Amino acid sequence: MTTADRDPWLLTPGPLTTTDQTKQAMLHDWGSRDATFIETNARVRRNLLKIANAEATHVCVPVQGSGTFAVEATLGTLIPKDGKALVLINGAYGHRMVKILGYAGRDCTAYETPEDTPPDTAELDRMLATDKAITHVLAVHCETTSGILNPIAEIAEVCEKHGKSLIIDSMSAFGAIDLDAAKVTFDAVMASSNKCLEGVPGMGFAIIRKSVLEGCKGNAHALSLDLYDQWTAMEKNAQWRFTPPTHVIVAFDSAISQFLDAGGVAGRYKRYSENRDILIDGMRKFGFETLLPDNLQAPIIVTFKMPEDPNFDFEVFYERLKNQGYIIYPGKLTVAPSFRIGCIGALGADEIRGALKVIESVLKDMNVQNGRPAAA
Amino acid sequence: MTTADRDPWLLTPGPLTTTDQTKQAMLHDWGSRDATFIETNARVRRNLLKIANAEATHVCVPVQGSGTFAVEATLGTLIPKDGKALVLINGAYGHRMVKILGYAGRDCTAYETPEDTPPDTAELDRMLATDKAITHVLAVHCETTSGILNPIAEIAEVCEKHGKSLIIDSMSAFGAIDLDAAKVTFDAVMASSNKCLEGVPGMGFAIIRKSVLEGCKGNAHALSLDLYDQWTAMEKNAQWRFTPPTHVIVAFDSAISQFLDAGGVAGRYKRYSENRDILIDGMRKFGFETLLPDNLQAPIIVTFKMPEDPNFDFEVFYERLKNQGYIIYPGKLTVAPSFRIGCIGALGADEIRGALKVIESVLKDMNVQNGRPAAA
Repeated sequence: MTTADRDPWLLTPGPLTTTDQTKQAMLHDWGSRDATFIETNARVRRNLLKIANAEATHVCVPVQGSGTFAVEATLGTLIPKDGKALVLINGAYGHRMVKILGYAGRDCTAYETPEDTPPDTAELDRMLATDKAITHVLAVHCETTSGILNPIAEIAEVCEKHGKSLIIDSMSAFGAIDLDAAKVTFDAVMASSNKCLEGVPGMGFAIIRKSVLEGCKGNAHALSLDLYDQWTAMEKNAQWRFTPPTHVIVAFDSAISQFLDAGGVAGRYKRYSENRDILIDGMRKFGFETLLPDNLQAPIIVTFKMPEDPNFDFEVFYERLKNQGYIIYPGKLTVAPSFRIGCIGALGADEIRGALKVIESVLKDMNVQNGRPAAA
Repeated sequence: MTTADRDPWLLTPGPLTTTDQTKQAMLHDWGSRDATFIETNARVRRNLLKIANAEATHVCVPVQGSGTFAVEATLGTLIPKDGKALVLINGAYGHRMVKILGYAGRDCTAYETPEDTPPDTAELDRMLATDKAITHVLAVHCETTSGILNPIAEIAEVCEKHGKSLIIDSMSAFGAIDLDAAKVTFDAVMASSNKCLEGVPGMGFAIIRKSVLEGCKGNAHALSLDLYDQWTAMEKNAQWRFTPPTHVIVAFDSAISQFLDAGGVAGRYKRYSENRDILIDGMRKFGFETLLPDNLQAPIIVTFKMPEDPNFDFEVFYERLKNQGYIIYPGKLTVAPSFRIGCIGALGADEIRGALKVIESVLKDMNVQNGRPAAA
């Protein structure tokens, strides 16, 4: 099959491949203040709460922009000007939260572990016991930098024990990895339209504990990113404060409805886990090694170490895969030279097997014997 | 024709009716770091500069979100923390800029005129001569609140005389009302994808004087809204810093290409002016009165005073027009009870005549003799 027949499969951390049905939802125009659109928006917010089993305790506040906009909006809205955040870092998205706090002028400290290492909850416990000024803990659910799954439930337990507010960046995990508000105590979780829920990019959202958000008036560092203002306005007239990305939202509504029909979080977790297992299995047969041990590897994106074979040139590899209809992703790591292949989006076992077949033939064409990395 | 046959025509200030070609551009998925998408993004930025005749002096910096995000990003990036803005207000969007400056902690003062009155440039001249602390003047090109066209060229002359930086919110005018950087001196103009350029909503952009932007490092009050950072990153690798709304951008690219094919700003101005003239002419025949005198009325959106006839109920009028496929807009004015009908989007004389026909029959059904407002 050549790419002329179809769009390339996006084996990336996003934007992702979406279904035709999702894209076709964008073939209409809507008035943003009209009842039909307002119903769609309300349904999206309701379903997102339901996915987190958070209807009884939390509210869903959407915001225009990318996932980072939702993260920045949540941090600015929830952390008061005299608050102090502890950021758990093991990749680029942890670092980005520190950067955001710098813009917003919020005090913060960090607990950083290497990109292939989850935070030690005993150390977190110690830090929270020692630094009483900390009010909020910020954690990344699946750190897309490496694909590592951080131990959110254990982190939440420690935060609860110390009475600290937990904010979770679940950008690349929400909808595929269970996060149940009745079991895991958190004040906010942020994600976006275009990751595991398989909408198109253009909006993010936060699921925020209602009792917490009610006290957040005046915190935000930017009007556009004020989720308290966005929430209270939307509760009043069911409309977005500023022009919403109507087509993105209607596509998201369609994507969420397909998600629910396909078994919700459990269904998505199963498909993505299969994708990951087939991918890792196939790549290992070619000699590639994953950065992470299997027990830390989320079914989201897999980091492979760069092969030692001097015939392997990543740019050439990338271009040839692209020419045959598969777009992969460069690495973003400091611990090891690497590249990444995603398991998420509207694709399954057939597409992963198709990618493996193409990888095999590209390696052969490049005269790469196998994908074994240099010994550490 | 019933609405079952088509989407309603959006006679609003946006989101607007877009062409099928524009929407169909969204039927694909793109990798945001892939060459194909990067070329599209570069073309959009280039064409936006060209529309303002600003290629020699300015750069185009896009940003995720609605138009307000672009306004807030520009104000935060361009006005230093010790700057002071003078905001020219005659409607909601002037007031919104004051609100943004409050969040960003920038000093500001306002010169407010009633919603049907443009600022007096002699008074502006006097204010700039008196208050030497003012560094920036913020003006709204077409204030969507009433549809009034503010005298941007005259305002720009006064600003230039006093050496003040002019920032123009041209959200609802850009692309339909000429703004030529070689003739009108401004440091920044902001607009969005979903107004007169007839893309779908989801991104805004600013056209910023390059020599000014170069000095703006560290000004911004939010990471997501830092246009200096967005610009320098995009110059480096041609990519957006954070996930771009890929489908929105590709639709915008298609819409801009159609815009250029249809005669650019001159072509759009002509079509929208015809729409406005047919609309006003027809409504006056029914007895309605416009808020603005014709010389202040931009070809964007028209405010009509509420009729005196007690049989006229705006909610009923709105619903009946909607049921026959035309969505209009409530008023947002304080000077007079009113409603608004837009002239922009992918529609022309036939659609405006269609709307007038439906308005005529709805008025008859409502037993409204004519649209004459109460005497002032």
